[in-house]
Amino acid sequence: MKTVSENRCFGGVQGVYTHASDTTGCDMTFGLFLPEEAERGPVPVIWYLSGLTCTHENAMVKAGAQKWAAEAGVALVFPDTSPRGADVPNDEAYDLGQGAGFYVNATEKPWSTHFRMWDYVTEELPRILFNAFPVAEERQSITGHSMGGHGALTIAMSFPGRFRSVSAFAPISNPSASDWGRKQFTAYLGTDETKWAPHDATLLMKKRGFDGPILIDQGSADNFIDLLKPEALAEAMAARRQGGILRMQKGYDHSYFFVSTFMEDHIGFHAAALYD
Amino acid sequence: MKTVSENRCFGGVQGVYTHASDTTGCDMTFGLFLPEEAERGPVPVIWYLSGLTCTHENAMVKAGAQKWAAEAGVALVFPDTSPRGADVPNDEAYDLGQGAGFYVNATEKPWSTHFRMWDYVTEELPRILFNAFPVAEERQSITGHSMGGHGALTIAMSFPGRFRSVSAFAPISNPSASDWGRKQFTAYLGTDETKWAPHDATLLMKKRGFDGPILIDQGSADNFIDLLKPEALAEAMAARRQGGILRMQKGYDHSYFFVSTFMEDHIGFHAAALYD
Repeated sequence: MKTVSENRCFGGVQGVYTHASDTTGCDMTFGLFLPEEAERGPVPVIWYLSGLTCTHENAMVKAGAQKWAAEAGVALVFPDTSPRGADVPNDEAYDLGQGAGFYVNATEKPWSTHFRMWDYVTEELPRILFNAFPVAEERQSITGHSMGGHGALTIAMSFPGRFRSVSAFAPISNPSASDWGRKQFTAYLGTDETKWAPHDATLLMKKRGFDGPILIDQGSADNFIDLLKPEALAEAMAARRQGGILRMQKGYDHSYFFVSTFMEDHIGFHAAALYD
Repeated sequence: MKTVSENRCFGGVQGVYTHASDTTGCDMTFGLFLPEEAERGPVPVIWYLSGLTCTHENAMVKAGAQKWAAEAGVALVFPDTSPRGADVPNDEAYDLGQGAGFYVNATEKPWSTHFRMWDYVTEELPRILFNAFPVAEERQSITGHSMGGHGALTIAMSFPGRFRSVSAFAPISNPSASDWGRKQFTAYLGTDETKWAPHDATLLMKKRGFDGPILIDQGSADNFIDLLKPEALAEAMAARRQGGILRMQKGYDHSYFFVSTFMEDHIGFHAAALYD
């Protein structure tokens, strides 16, 4: 693992690291914010999964999360959203290929060799994180934005007991029924929709739910709201009697101006669960 | 004037606007954050001047300032750092030409036609701002980062009574004695150093000072600290008995991780003066 940069930030350190990944078959880069408390021992960690077109960097510089993480004494990890590099397949569209891994293990060509973001985020990167940094494996929470909200919700529901809490900003909530989902699942997973179901937050909510608190924020003026389908997840949560909060924020759109506005609430929400 | 974008943000609106500028002879873009209070009447405003290579956008997305501006009920204006466009002269170096206006009116060719950022920031943009938006002309403060800290300090000291308070993050403090200054002043203003003096914060501090509170933050691990020369300004402030605070922040560098860490303090500092 190589250190790309380390910058002092809110009394802690915002680092960027790169490593050769066995899972994705390429170098992967991630950001990690460690609060000052990490100098004295392991701290809780919140995973932040990013959306389409993003790298590890977007949320790290635009979400304003470090302030609240520093106050709460929690680490933040910012994985990339896909494998990268000249040898890695890509697509001209912004919503397929590099920058658009969708947090699945692709089974279809040409994607299946490198596009294994599910395993990367749930197995390889956690192993690296907990081995190399003062981060407490038994105190994890997860959040994300848009495609990353989809990742956060599906991963949280698929690993019961691993995450104390889950939240999302404008998540892709029902990808099996959306053009943000059907296109990518067909490309990465093939046409058999039973293979898609484990990666659809609404379907997982109907089947399993989440054994902890959930917080979801959605902007009412989100330009992509018809693709995100918050109403499907809302219906599934209510039907299941899932404990959680779903907030429709009047006038907010899909941008990081929306994410940063409510970041304090999300970090506070997770910190309460992590220190419970 | 054209609206490029408006995003709801911390209960207010983060806007980006573009207009044909008489001063710089090209289209200019600026960012403006208006807090919710602006719906009911004019609000105080803090000017944020950016550093080398930046546009109107860097601080707007990376400094985390809107949260604190929203809490304080103040507007934030983010001007660009130079004229822009294919017809505007440029230089291969990052620290001259487009992105590096240095907040002066160039008198030398080829810069003198367009590079009039002093007049743009102190005359034309204020006129536009106070005509078109609910911003209170009698309640202004100013801050900036690096080259923008130089701009904030020199402008504040040159217009006594206009700004209630001035602050800076890692300002270029003594450009007449630095390679961040001598090169650009020679190009823009010529070799007569008496023309440089009105644009050197340390020299202005010796001659005039500022009739209000000053706050300056400087990272001790700033990779450009030898070019910034905080010691020259510190000496001048102390010798003058200038009221103010200069903080050397241990371990912080020149990045927006440094700026965002101390943004809350700066907005709070200005808000106290603006509501005094």
